[in-house]
Amino acid sequence: MDHLDLRQYAVHTDLALEAKELAETANGGPIPGVLSELLDEDGIKVSRVHVQTEQGSRAIGKMPGRYVTLEIPGLRNQDTGLQDKVATRFAQEFESFLERAGVGKSARILIAGLGNWNVTPDALGPLVVENVMVTRHFFELMPDQVAPGYRAVSAVAPGVLGITGIESSEIIQGIVEKTRPDAVIAIDALASKALERVNTTIQIADTGIHPGSGIGNKRKGLTKEILGVPVIAIGVPTVVFASNIVNDCMRLLEDHLAAHAANSGTQIMGLMHKMDENERLQLVREVLQPLGHDLIVTPKEIDQFIEDIANIIASGLNASLHDAVDTSNVAAYTH
Amino acid sequence: MDHLDLRQYAVHTDLALEAKELAETANGGPIPGVLSELLDEDGIKVSRVHVQTEQGSRAIGKMPGRYVTLEIPGLRNQDTGLQDKVATRFAQEFESFLERAGVGKSARILIAGLGNWNVTPDALGPLVVENVMVTRHFFELMPDQVAPGYRAVSAVAPGVLGITGIESSEIIQGIVEKTRPDAVIAIDALASKALERVNTTIQIADTGIHPGSGIGNKRKGLTKEILGVPVIAIGVPTVVFASNIVNDCMRLLEDHLAAHAANSGTQIMGLMHKMDENERLQLVREVLQPLGHDLIVTPKEIDQFIEDIANIIASGLNASLHDAVDTSNVAAYTH
Amino acid sequence: MDHLDLRQYAVHTDLALEAKELAETANGGPIPGVLSELLDEDGIKVSRVHVQTEQGSRAIGKMPGRYVTLEIPGLRNQDTGLQDKVATRFAQEFESFLERAGVGKSARILIAGLGNWNVTPDALGPLVVENVMVTRHFFELMPDQVAPGYRAVSAVAPGVLGITGIESSEIIQGIVEKTRPDAVIAIDALASKALERVNTTIQIADTGIHPGSGIGNKRKGLTKEILGVPVIAIGVPTVVFASNIVNDCMRLLEDHLAAHAANSGTQIMGLMHKMDENERLQLVREVLQPLGHDLIVTPKEIDQFIEDIANIIASGLNASLHDAVDTSNVAAYTH
Amino acid sequence: MDHLDLRQYAVHTDLALEAKELAETANGGPIPGVLSELLDEDGIKVSRVHVQTEQGSRAIGKMPGRYVTLEIPGLRNQDTGLQDKVATRFAQEFESFLERAGVGKSARILIAGLGNWNVTPDALGPLVVENVMVTRHFFELMPDQVAPGYRAVSAVAPGVLGITGIESSEIIQGIVEKTRPDAVIAIDALASKALERVNTTIQIADTGIHPGSGIGNKRKGLTKEILGVPVIAIGVPTVVFASNIVNDCMRLLEDHLAAHAANSGTQIMGLMHKMDENERLQLVREVLQPLGHDLIVTPKEIDQFIEDIANIIASGLNASLHDAVDTSNVAAYTH
Repeated sequence: MDHLDLRQYAVHTDLALEAKELAETANGGPIPGVLSELLDEDGIKVSRVHVQTEQGSRAIGKMPGRYVTLEIPGLRNQDTGLQDKVATRFAQEFESFLERAGVGKSARILIAGLGNWNVTPDALGPLVVENVMVTRHFFELMPDQVAPGYRAVSAVAPGVLGITGIESSEIIQGIVEKTRPDAVIAIDALASKALERVNTTIQIADTGIHPGSGIGNKRKGLTKEILGVPVIAIGVPTVVFASNIVNDCMRLLEDHLAAHAANSGTQIMGLMHKMDENERLQLVREVLQPLGHDLIVTPKEIDQFIEDIANIIASGLNASLHDAVDTSNVAAYTH
Repeated sequence: MDHLDLRQYAVHTDLALEAKELAETANGGPIPGVLSELLDEDGIKVSRVHVQTEQGSRAIGKMPGRYVTLEIPGLRNQDTGLQDKVATRFAQEFESFLERAGVGKSARILIAGLGNWNVTPDALGPLVVENVMVTRHFFELMPDQVAPGYRAVSAVAPGVLGITGIESSEIIQGIVEKTRPDAVIAIDALASKALERVNTTIQIADTGIHPGSGIGNKRKGLTKEILGVPVIAIGVPTVVFASNIVNDCMRLLEDHLAAHAANSGTQIMGLMHKMDENERLQLVREVLQPLGHDLIVTPKEIDQFIEDIANIIASGLNASLHDAVDTSNVAAYTH
Repeated sequence: MDHLDLRQYAVHTDLALEAKELAETANGGPIPGVLSELLDEDGIKVSRVHVQTEQGSRAIGKMPGRYVTLEIPGLRNQDTGLQDKVATRFAQEFESFLERAGVGKSARILIAGLGNWNVTPDALGPLVVENVMVTRHFFELMPDQVAPGYRAVSAVAPGVLGITGIESSEIIQGIVEKTRPDAVIAIDALASKALERVNTTIQIADTGIHPGSGIGNKRKGLTKEILGVPVIAIGVPTVVFASNIVNDCMRLLEDHLAAHAANSGTQIMGLMHKMDENERLQLVREVLQPLGHDLIVTPKEIDQFIEDIANIIASGLNASLHDAVDTSNVAAYTH
Repeated sequence: MDHLDLRQYAVHTDLALEAKELAETANGGPIPGVLSELLDEDGIKVSRVHVQTEQGSRAIGKMPGRYVTLEIPGLRNQDTGLQDKVATRFAQEFESFLERAGVGKSARILIAGLGNWNVTPDALGPLVVENVMVTRHFFELMPDQVAPGYRAVSAVAPGVLGITGIESSEIIQGIVEKTRPDAVIAIDALASKALERVNTTIQIADTGIHPGSGIGNKRKGLTKEILGVPVIAIGVPTVVFASNIVNDCMRLLEDHLAAHAANSGTQIMGLMHKMDENERLQLVREVLQPLGHDLIVTPKEIDQFIEDIANIIASGLNASLHDAVDTSNVAAYTH
């Protein structure tokens, strides 16, 4: 129903981590104004990218702000134990992220689950809304009786433009103006440039949602400027362009060749070896698009994955938003 | 998740037609201030009830205003031909209804599909939203290119309090204030007092949605007073209280006995014969409620029915809202 | 799609416990040839009915054999803790039941999940099949590598006559002849005569499935005579006839009146007080059926309930069929 | 749950048409023993491939027999009019196919819908079963009353090994032995080597289903040898290996370069230009597999597509199997 604009000028990715890597490769080194650090434990890789300056922002094509990315290749294996560990880790990261973003312990939260119920790889947001614990109505209807350790949380799935005729941004704006939360958490399915990151990665960002990001084509964003309150975005790549799969494979092929024989790159891959990634992607698209082959694809197992990751995020949100919900066993509060 | 308040004082029904019949039986004749007329053709019975005065309103327990009810017993048989006829008839009735309600040909419409996706008998509203044709975004994004014969229609499913933590009334209010439609059409699943009307009846009303009506327990309504624009309600009874089934059966039993033997009513049914319907229902509830037996029930075939009736309403709305969609073949525009 | 035959001659119930109670009321005391015992602990009521003679069988209208019924009124409240307790208790009862039925520890099992995916109250069987652990393919493909404590279990959902054009009994027969299990466990949704037992009761029986039982109208049964191996039936009432709700309410009304004023029964209920249950039900049906009002209904919350009870049964089966799965924590093996 | 074996030795495709094209490219011309013809009208391309000899069979890696392929690139656009045209055309092709395969007008048919309900791109078979018209039970229960122009059709969805613990081949065998149809029609989702054929192609074959074909990994086939009656297979590619997308893109790149500059192929693509397709795919896999990147993917819009194509096939089957169903308006008989 809704389609991604093709970013003609660059590899399309919604992940700041990928954008940074691309820019570094092109630049031959670190990008000024973009700080990053990496942790790797227990099969969970946590990257923190901080885009500090406008210059850095332009260089990687992402808004200034903080981005935390959890990469968990093992998520593909449907291991319930690992899923619990990821929920706990996500809860911890998200809790500190909220703190750094100045969203206090008792700030009232509106969770906005973007995307389309009926398109499995785009259903992440609505599924999180369905699974997360909401409490705002208790605070409204019987404020004296709410146990300590909880805050007011509400959650809506605004639908997509093709179904509603209204930008999801406008719907959320209307609800924010009516219900006055202190912060918005926006959940969205994303596009990655690498098939390996699809269904294995969670990105948290304090930049909100910007036009053109996510699977649906958003013409208006969800940002602090628009909503008047901080917007934390949680995204999971669930799709990839066919052209990106091809391009990414060529990159891996180069690495592979480089590792095996010093000079064979050019010999085997010809000029494609010397092209930078954007040029090569350009060439691939020139070939695929007129034939209608540059489809957006998702792994065959998407139904199960979307359900699992929605549960992980809902559990993690419950634990990080309510002190009364223990981060050591977050899954119990979510069905 | 959300439950009906038990109306202790009276038989609960969301249908004005049933409320009027109850009041007439109690009153032994027509209710002052409540006009009604009845048409019956092609297996479709159309009743028009006009509650003209406050007195009439109090007598039947329904807001002053106009109510049109379509009763189609044959809908139970999953007859595709009949469904098309009902969609066409509904479109005609709804078109004149809009006119009488002062909603003009080019008035911009917001359709609000109330209810819960995950509770089949409460999923009517969201299903209509999913199936109806929306056009508002074309008017917003390329107003010059919209063909004549269309108007701006948008549609949202706000979810239920237990999922969102926000009254659906507040969500719709926020969206109305942001998008400024000229009228709202609210779709909701209802409770009937008679099992025979479940899944066979469509009610249209110009009174909006009031607290306590519908399957979900709404504390705040969707009315012209609240939203500032006319609110047309479309409702379909999909559930009934067990106590109402019992009570209704006793009424039928009386009619049956009366038809067969003049005096046997009292003999066979004892004092229950002499009780009025409210007293009897009171007695039935006294028995059922402490045992937890006064459940809200729905016919076994609800899954298929909800899908069919949502299609009928979506098709009918398409035809009545857009002149370019022909009422003679409304189904084609809906999937 | 498939409908119950109306049993003209008697109150329809698929529960032996209800059939026994009905017969006892009519008989004014215990039925010869029908033994029963009752345990009640932790909110779980366990009844064991043993129909020992042909005479007893005729008197209650159920096949000779053993019937165990778990009644858990609290299941209506969606309490996860209670659900785990019920799964554990069901596993224990089922394990002893298998033993008494002569189905040994290593007997290979075929689970047959009867019913229709697309009709929520009839979807119990297919949902259990989807959630239960199957192991037969490991025994077939790598028998040496199966850990001790498991047995060969397979599971199929044969569909319903209206979808397949084949009696589910014939499909299961074909699969039994091909795969040669030592016993069949058949799961089916049932009709109860009392709304209170709907969604709160599990019946286990060693009599197999007989024509006319279950929600779908089975013309051929699943029995030891037909399949050549023992057939254990697990059933959960998910629907009730409207006429049974009325009749059952009248019975409760009588009890209520009897408890409050010695002689008022006749006065208030007239001759209906003196009718026996079958006569009264006959009268109720005479009234409801010509009007098409004797629908089969299910509680509004059926979607959530069916999912919960399917999980309970799947967990319970996993624990009772495999020694390696601990009855103290059966839920973990089921998703 | 079930995964494709990687065919190490060759490009994996379930389409005979693709296998033939690959072999012809490698061979530099037509393959002896493999006849083919091509028709193109109204946006529907119909190819007929006849593998006449064992030699031809070995050369293209497909069983001897007849294969008809409908390619309809426009199916991606969700055009209802085109869908009706495709259903009609498919019905005509399938009817002549049955005739050529010696399956007579009154032959009793069993439709076997292979695949997994819960994995969207693998749900084609079960969805066709749900939508197709079954009649066998009428012939069994009231043979005198069946109108002329119909034949006995039944339909089952046997499930997948991971859910049932039984090979679907064994389940179908058991049902065939019990119900004695004259022919089996097996529906299955397939893998293509080219993303462009995913969701746009229907293959009909008289060779049955062979181990390793389809999305699920079938260890035992559904063939005339096994079932004793002719088996017609209908398959639709719904997935593709990531490595095939890359490989296919390289082939397109070559064509593209060849069309633009005579000699630039080698220059730009290096040695990869000179590799044959199998070698190149080998190289791509060497790179992708160790990284776990050679996923099986499906287009993002798979949910809607699977529903549409299942309807097309069900409508087409209804029209071709029953003379009383008119090929000019097949869609009406299917919901």
